[in-house]
Amino acid sequence: MLNFAHLKKGSVIPRKTIYRLSIYLRCLARLRENGISTVSSEALAQAAGVKPTQLRKDLAYFGTFGTRGLGYDVGALSKKISDKLGTSRLQPVILVGVGNLGLALLSYRGFEKEGFEIVAAFDADPRRKRDKQIKQPIFGMDELSIVVKEQGIKMAILTVPAAVAQEVANHLVEAGIVGILNFSPIVLAVSEDVMVNNVNLAIELENLSYFTQE
Amino acid sequence: MLNFAHLKKGSVIPRKTIYRLSIYLRCLARLRENGISTVSSEALAQAAGVKPTQLRKDLAYFGTFGTRGLGYDVGALSKKISDKLGTSRLQPVILVGVGNLGLALLSYRGFEKEGFEIVAAFDADPRRKRDKQIKQPIFGMDELSIVVKEQGIKMAILTVPAAVAQEVANHLVEAGIVGILNFSPIVLAVSEDVMVNNVNLAIELENLSYFTQE
Repeated sequence: MLNFAHLKKGSVIPRKTIYRLSIYLRCLARLRENGISTVSSEALAQAAGVKPTQLRKDLAYFGTFGTRGLGYDVGALSKKISDKLGTSRLQPVILVGVGNLGLALLSYRGFEKEGFEIVAAFDADPRRKRDKQIKQPIFGMDELSIVVKEQGIKMAILTVPAAVAQEVANHLVEAGIVGILNFSPIVLAVSEDVMVNNVNLAIELENLSYFTQE
Repeated sequence: MLNFAHLKKGSVIPRKTIYRLSIYLRCLARLRENGISTVSSEALAQAAGVKPTQLRKDLAYFGTFGTRGLGYDVGALSKKISDKLGTSRLQPVILVGVGNLGLALLSYRGFEKEGFEIVAAFDADPRRKRDKQIKQPIFGMDELSIVVKEQGIKMAILTVPAAVAQEVANHLVEAGIVGILNFSPIVLAVSEDVMVNNVNLAIELENLSYFTQE
């Protein structure tokens, strides 16, 4: 998927490497579930769908470890990656825009086991009747700054209509949000110290569409 | 977002260019909505968040057009891109795995205006009670091949649990699906003539998490 985000100043690990670290972490989790305690770089690379040279290069950011001929310790490598990604403890996230997609993501249980908890939702019309019960509170936009500051929240999921996305993004950044997962189909203009990852489902389908034509 | 997909044999336009064409198409749509009929490469590039040289390079795949000093005709360029992407007419898509996320995507209205219609859903347990009404029919997995073949469907959205994703993907490919939008957090192994685009929301959050650490 496309990314227009700016790199955080002073960050040393490239963005694509960070994505691959997430993949390695998931492969390692599966190995642990299967009771496997060491893994060769070849086997881990294959599970992650990358070349062994790529894996070794990516893990070199952690300094040298792993024993030649024995491979990596699954638990130790998981912990190193998880610490680096900042997901060793549950991270609070807010969601802004409780429409159809927002509502779906609020009730999606896939985030928590990956280390993220959507703690609150915000909407221009928080009291509108919605066709699904969710456990998170829905606040009005005027309460956003207070909640973000009080709870020290840094990340937001943005699921508002394209027409208001930039305005809401500005609001988020003012409140102290520095990472935005943007589902609105527009390119957000943000300052360099804010990171935006874009998820555009229609564009993904369109991309598939091109490649599936005869 | 990460992509592990294989390029379609014989395709001439690179995958990243195809993604950018989707972005240009959306920028052009907004220009049309605002009654603007011509646009310079500089203005279009800025709206899309790319460099003008990149834009000109991408559009060169369509041969030379656009008039120096006058820019591109918004309507004509939209049509050329849309034809190339195969989204000039509504394309049928199926969704497999009607859990929480699948249900949300079925009721998400953002796809149709982008040229995609989810015409049917499939689930291992099609009759299970779901907490949301949807307009699409839900079929059992045994009906998948028939529906795909009868309706000539090429694309599928995959929202099944990771544990069964590979098995279901194999089933899809056997039925004739050649493009998969995969939401399951695993790397699917498919033959080279099948395209997989991966959307992994947890990995996007994890990536943001790294870049938002202090």
